[in-house]
Amino acid sequence: MTPSQSHAPYPRRTSVKKGLVIVHTGQGKGKTTAALGVLFRAWGRGMRVGVIQFLKNQHARYGEIKAARKLGIDWVVTGDGWTWRSRDLEESAALARHGWALAQERIMHGDYDILILDEFTYPLHFGWLDVEEVIDWLRVHKPPMLHVIITGRYAPQALIDFADLVTEMREIKHPYQEQGITAQPGIEF
Amino acid sequence: MTPSQSHAPYPRRTSVKKGLVIVHTGQGKGKTTAALGVLFRAWGRGMRVGVIQFLKNQHARYGEIKAARKLGIDWVVTGDGWTWRSRDLEESAALARHGWALAQERIMHGDYDILILDEFTYPLHFGWLDVEEVIDWLRVHKPPMLHVIITGRYAPQALIDFADLVTEMREIKHPYQEQGITAQPGIEF
Repeated sequence: MTPSQSHAPYPRRTSVKKGLVIVHTGQGKGKTTAALGVLFRAWGRGMRVGVIQFLKNQHARYGEIKAARKLGIDWVVTGDGWTWRSRDLEESAALARHGWALAQERIMHGDYDILILDEFTYPLHFGWLDVEEVIDWLRVHKPPMLHVIITGRYAPQALIDFADLVTEMREIKHPYQEQGITAQPGIEF
Repeated sequence: MTPSQSHAPYPRRTSVKKGLVIVHTGQGKGKTTAALGVLFRAWGRGMRVGVIQFLKNQHARYGEIKAARKLGIDWVVTGDGWTWRSRDLEESAALARHGWALAQERIMHGDYDILILDEFTYPLHFGWLDVEEVIDWLRVHKPPMLHVIITGRYAPQALIDFADLVTEMREIKHPYQEQGITAQPGIEF
């Protein structure tokens, strides 16, 4: 096997351009992180990028929110107070619907090139939002050149079918359980 | 299944801290991009980050190099002129060794918190560098708190065994072959 045979990281260019619906899913790490990498790259090109964060997690995404603020990147936290420790599913559903309403507004009027819906798979997976309704809405209202990146575990099959590009992050090896290593600032959050 | 049962994106903190060796491999997208996301996040925290790029690709990583330059992030392109179209394996091997020498110098003296060795799996896979020698060197010389992130397909098993955290990016769905869609600036490069 020679390099030229085995490696083709980029496809040849063809003439079609469109805004993609991209999904990062799976049990492994790197789903949100890869979306942040796209944001970093696009920001380098002067593109208009934004993040809508559907899950307020333990570490509150400290590093990335700080970076976004420094760079003037729009970063919206929805579902304030909604965590995976919440026992109140009624409230979680209401917060998810509120988050989706914010996302809809920004998708239509936000004037973005790339919008990240971070951890948006969860409200779909848990049925707090109807996946078919969300897809139908995106089909009609997503501006044709806008790229939307959706991250999170348990991406519903209908979303995978709808998306243009789907990557699964699989955990092959993880240090924390095995070695008792702390979640590392900068690496994890 | 309730959220609290099914979702634990972050492990509980324990008391061990160390610099990790992290590998992003697999045939899917997002390997380099997730490393860029880590860089973005860590930069947000004011950490010292650098990139050593082992593969000069078709699109020359335009967006990310531009972003790194804007942010004052150290980004070194090694193996200038080495592409996967190269037919000259002798030259490729020499360039890989030169790149690794640069990487060694920066690992030891670069004073980084996080260093990305982008597409470093290829010289290991093709045998231009000896994977056991590289691992032995890292075991001895990597500063204990330095995180090293290695990206690329075909990560050798010995590297996976050595690493602390390994994620495989699997392609579930890809638009380019299926739909004839162009590689998109900002998304791809």
